[in-house]
Amino acid sequence: MFFQFLDILGTIAFAISGVLVALEKRMDPFGVLIIAFVTAAGGGTLRDVLIGQTPVTWMTNMTYVYVIIGSTVSAILLRRHINYLRTSLFLFDTIGIGLYTVVGVEKGLSVGLHPIICVALGTMTACFGGVTRDILSNEIPVIFRKEIYATACIIGGATYFMLHYFPIKENVIFVISGAVVIAIRLLAVKFKISLPSIYRD
Amino acid sequence: MFFQFLDILGTIAFAISGVLVALEKRMDPFGVLIIAFVTAAGGGTLRDVLIGQTPVTWMTNMTYVYVIIGSTVSAILLRRHINYLRTSLFLFDTIGIGLYTVVGVEKGLSVGLHPIICVALGTMTACFGGVTRDILSNEIPVIFRKEIYATACIIGGATYFMLHYFPIKENVIFVISGAVVIAIRLLAVKFKISLPSIYRD
Amino acid sequence: MFFQFLDILGTIAFAISGVLVALEKRMDPFGVLIIAFVTAAGGGTLRDVLIGQTPVTWMTNMTYVYVIIGSTVSAILLRRHINYLRTSLFLFDTIGIGLYTVVGVEKGLSVGLHPIICVALGTMTACFGGVTRDILSNEIPVIFRKEIYATACIIGGATYFMLHYFPIKENVIFVISGAVVIAIRLLAVKFKISLPSIYRD
Repeated sequence: MFFQFLDILGTIAFAISGVLVALEKRMDPFGVLIIAFVTAAGGGTLRDVLIGQTPVTWMTNMTYVYVIIGSTVSAILLRRHINYLRTSLFLFDTIGIGLYTVVGVEKGLSVGLHPIICVALGTMTACFGGVTRDILSNEIPVIFRKEIYATACIIGGATYFMLHYFPIKENVIFVISGAVVIAIRLLAVKFKISLPSIYRD
Repeated sequence: MFFQFLDILGTIAFAISGVLVALEKRMDPFGVLIIAFVTAAGGGTLRDVLIGQTPVTWMTNMTYVYVIIGSTVSAILLRRHINYLRTSLFLFDTIGIGLYTVVGVEKGLSVGLHPIICVALGTMTACFGGVTRDILSNEIPVIFRKEIYATACIIGGATYFMLHYFPIKENVIFVISGAVVIAIRLLAVKFKISLPSIYRD
Repeated sequence: MFFQFLDILGTIAFAISGVLVALEKRMDPFGVLIIAFVTAAGGGTLRDVLIGQTPVTWMTNMTYVYVIIGSTVSAILLRRHINYLRTSLFLFDTIGIGLYTVVGVEKGLSVGLHPIICVALGTMTACFGGVTRDILSNEIPVIFRKEIYATACIIGGATYFMLHYFPIKENVIFVISGAVVIAIRLLAVKFKISLPSIYRD
């Protein structure tokens, strides 16, 4: 229940982030819908295909389709009220990766995968939609910009497993892990923190 | 039967469109074959993977492989007789999306998916091969040019479901829906019709 | 046994090739790890998804994950001693495609696919990781440069099947076929051999 609630929230956040990118590119309505769809459903689709849960989730559960269409139409109608496009995009994308990381980790656990694989799965679920959105919109993919992005997901996913050593309720662990991803990315961008690159000489 | 006939026709059309793009890039024979293969088999491969029909169709039914190799060799040999390269490419690509849209919708229905999902599946089947062909050949993907493309597939897929409310034979519904996709794209390009983009202010 | 040994060797070679590309792009440690992972695991992941062996191999067999992490850390630590970056990259990538071609062909046979499909599967297993590595690192994909690459894999895969007409032990066939791929690519690059492109007029 709570798990699906987080998944839907992440779907809304990513769909809106897709609409914002597509609007900036002045796409036509179908183009905007396709970008919103790919952004919101891309990560989960990759995850489901890799673990063999097919037909993929959004094909068998119409909720996702309706949520994505609804979010897209709402975001288009309210587009004049979503101020500061870049900031909104950053916020919705960050909420999206926070929620999807936890959703992906959980999905991996549910099919009995190793914790390291679950963290990788969470990171892919979180990052793949945004990367595809950016490639399709001809932007530099968010994951390759000089920012902490996948790293925040990896740390959030690791947090999820570490919290299980403490007597904390499952739902609280969900929320904390997702919040860790969001907080790390917000702080990293605010204070311009990035990992040092490895030089060769 | 009729269904597989359409699928083979679409395969031929897309393989030829792949050869035409590859020839323009002056690729070597293996390069041409790989582009032809990806264009013709890409959409169906994505569709099969997403619905979990694996090994994917072209791996278990050698007909597709032989048809693609045959079309490629024929198109290479007859290349001097395929006049007006751009026009030929446009025509073969358009026939391809028309046929593949219907094939994809049908495949979705055969595994019991919701009509909206079937239309999405038909659109993906139709568009993914051409998009991959263009990315691999370093062209702007056809779907992102200022033309009606995915939109034609979506309308054609919707037509397929609407026609089922009328007393029309299945095979006729196939042909009409595919023709709708082809007609919409032909007319849209001929009369330079495109959907208006959504401006933000 | 021997089969998995080749697979691990290929994984090491591709992981190092990924590290070398990522180092040249001055990525941060997580970026280097992600590129190494995609390069080493990408081809096998595509193969497993297409034939329906899910969850994909690296998710269920932790050996691959540990080998990739170990290779990455070692290559980073020893980076000052891997001289002539371009040459090293070329060598590790070539060893990688040689080994992965045979691994991919074998995997195809193990699920009963047609020899032609097995060769295609071996070629995809060998080439997909390197192509993704190059796309993610913003390099021209190795497969599209004017060099023999996929062609070497196709010939090596065909060799594998032809050798079965002779009384040669299975493990020896593995080694010869992989060596054919490596030799063809080495010789082609050394003597600047490439297939002629097909002109249109």
